[in-house]
Amino acid sequence: MRGVVMYGAGDVRVEDRPRPTIVEPTDAILKLAASCVCGSDLWPYRGLDAVNEPTPMGHEYCGVVEEVGSAVTNVKVGDFVVGSFFASDNTCEICLSGYQTACIHRQPGAASGGQSEYLRVPLADGTLVATPGMPDADLIPSLLAASDVLGTGWFAAKAAEVGPGKTVAVVGDGAVGLLGIMAAKQLGAERIIAMSRHASRQALALEFGATDIVTERGDEGVAKVKELTGGLGAHSTLEAVGTQESMMQAIRATRPGGHVGFVGVLHGVDIPGGEFFMSHVHIHGGPAPVRNYLPDLIDRIMKREINPGRVFDLDVSIEDAAEAYKAMDERRAIKALLRF
Amino acid sequence: MRGVVMYGAGDVRVEDRPRPTIVEPTDAILKLAASCVCGSDLWPYRGLDAVNEPTPMGHEYCGVVEEVGSAVTNVKVGDFVVGSFFASDNTCEICLSGYQTACIHRQPGAASGGQSEYLRVPLADGTLVATPGMPDADLIPSLLAASDVLGTGWFAAKAAEVGPGKTVAVVGDGAVGLLGIMAAKQLGAERIIAMSRHASRQALALEFGATDIVTERGDEGVAKVKELTGGLGAHSTLEAVGTQESMMQAIRATRPGGHVGFVGVLHGVDIPGGEFFMSHVHIHGGPAPVRNYLPDLIDRIMKREINPGRVFDLDVSIEDAAEAYKAMDERRAIKALLRF
Repeated sequence: MRGVVMYGAGDVRVEDRPRPTIVEPTDAILKLAASCVCGSDLWPYRGLDAVNEPTPMGHEYCGVVEEVGSAVTNVKVGDFVVGSFFASDNTCEICLSGYQTACIHRQPGAASGGQSEYLRVPLADGTLVATPGMPDADLIPSLLAASDVLGTGWFAAKAAEVGPGKTVAVVGDGAVGLLGIMAAKQLGAERIIAMSRHASRQALALEFGATDIVTERGDEGVAKVKELTGGLGAHSTLEAVGTQESMMQAIRATRPGGHVGFVGVLHGVDIPGGEFFMSHVHIHGGPAPVRNYLPDLIDRIMKREINPGRVFDLDVSIEDAAEAYKAMDERRAIKALLRF
Repeated sequence: MRGVVMYGAGDVRVEDRPRPTIVEPTDAILKLAASCVCGSDLWPYRGLDAVNEPTPMGHEYCGVVEEVGSAVTNVKVGDFVVGSFFASDNTCEICLSGYQTACIHRQPGAASGGQSEYLRVPLADGTLVATPGMPDADLIPSLLAASDVLGTGWFAAKAAEVGPGKTVAVVGDGAVGLLGIMAAKQLGAERIIAMSRHASRQALALEFGATDIVTERGDEGVAKVKELTGGLGAHSTLEAVGTQESMMQAIRATRPGGHVGFVGVLHGVDIPGGEFFMSHVHIHGGPAPVRNYLPDLIDRIMKREINPGRVFDLDVSIEDAAEAYKAMDERRAIKALLRF
């Protein structure tokens, strides 16, 4: 099968790779419907995370169950399923509290590489959620988005306690930030301030429910959010970047007693205690427990209430994966879909 | 009047000071019932906060209203009142959301110094809460505790989302940590793990509702809390110290999805983003909005349901303030009451 392997910073190759097989009785093998490149794949691509050996890439996936291990009972061959980047048993106390990405049996959900035609998924019973029947082809991008970027934006909004009557600020205009806007809208936010300086992303932000656009960044961006909120700051701020600047922008844009939900993988970030102490904000985040939201997200997608697949503005063959990475790295594309 | 002034690290003096007078029409002058030394007073005493000029000390207070400014309507001369360390209007949007310590008109609640016989309190209408009738003398220590350490422990418990069925860990066995235990008990916690290695504080922790004592600190303390919680960590952890070690101990003792409530004034603390990201804990804290809890706390004290005044294990004349500071600094006393 064809699959994407990263050899080092900037070095992405498409290769013939061995098709994965069942290893544990709790595994499932999926024939993927499509694959895609994640913003977090850009960290190693840019040399900001080490690539110590050739690494199969990709952790967002949906597709048809091809084979199941002997212990799998919740999904069957022929089901169309969506999973996410961590596999979880969905039965432990932590899973049951809604934090499947901290499952006591957590392991990579796409260890064999999700940017490939076939994928082995561990803990299939706890990890995979089947759609009600086979989805129409045009829903594949949205179901693929549910696997990570939508679920992650959703968690950011939940972690930031978004709800009716609230003013929400969103730091980051990548796929996760944009889908955080969609989540905020769905969760009833009254006002959604998108922080973006890119015309195409601003347009999608508005389409997804943003009511205001702030183009300024850092302290100027914070000042603008305060100006829009009677000097107080947002009730809820979604941080979807993961840098020191973006985290401080999120904390400072939030009113005392407000909530910051952060989902950008933090790189070199330290939250200064003294400022945090006086800010009176709540902070919560981490790897999104997408599994917790999948049934709801799949339902909204299948009913065509939301169209998160709109974040894919580049749709190419997997053979063009290197160009897909490059386009995202150069911010020419928000998110790239890879077809087999 | 007699009052405590700090001249520098370790240099606390009791002096004749001018009795405060009404400055703003929103002020009240109180004749204090007693005063006390706060754990946070030890930061400058130990040279960890700068003392740039002779500074009147003390920010915990209760007593009888002696005089009110022309704009004060909520309290009257002769009322027994309790206030807290920040004055607030209690009418702005931030106050109404429960964060009076971030009031848009916030100012020091005891600017003229609370370790003195008389005190000027700004924004009296928003800041002071009257007791129903004159309290018995034996309730004064508890009402004084409500002014800061009880309200702060209460906020830590609220910020950590303490509630029925939850296991709570408390880092810090000073007055605030001990009263955090009392708060956790009152808020229905099922199990309360006090982290303390001092016999007298352990005894008070147990009296206040602790079910387990952990004497280990740092990573060993964390391991012990995990051992007591099926390997998962506490649902709610109260951080009542304010150092890097104590904050990390609190974060690490908390299960994924759990809550850390922090009220120790953070000194030189940086929360490492990468670890925080993977921890999945919620963090919230800051200067406790004591005003928010005062009506409830006063009610519980007047009904003798709680006796937070038990944290005062040293009861001396204000003339002995220097010795009171020294006893707390050397951890010979948990908290010192100063009588006039």
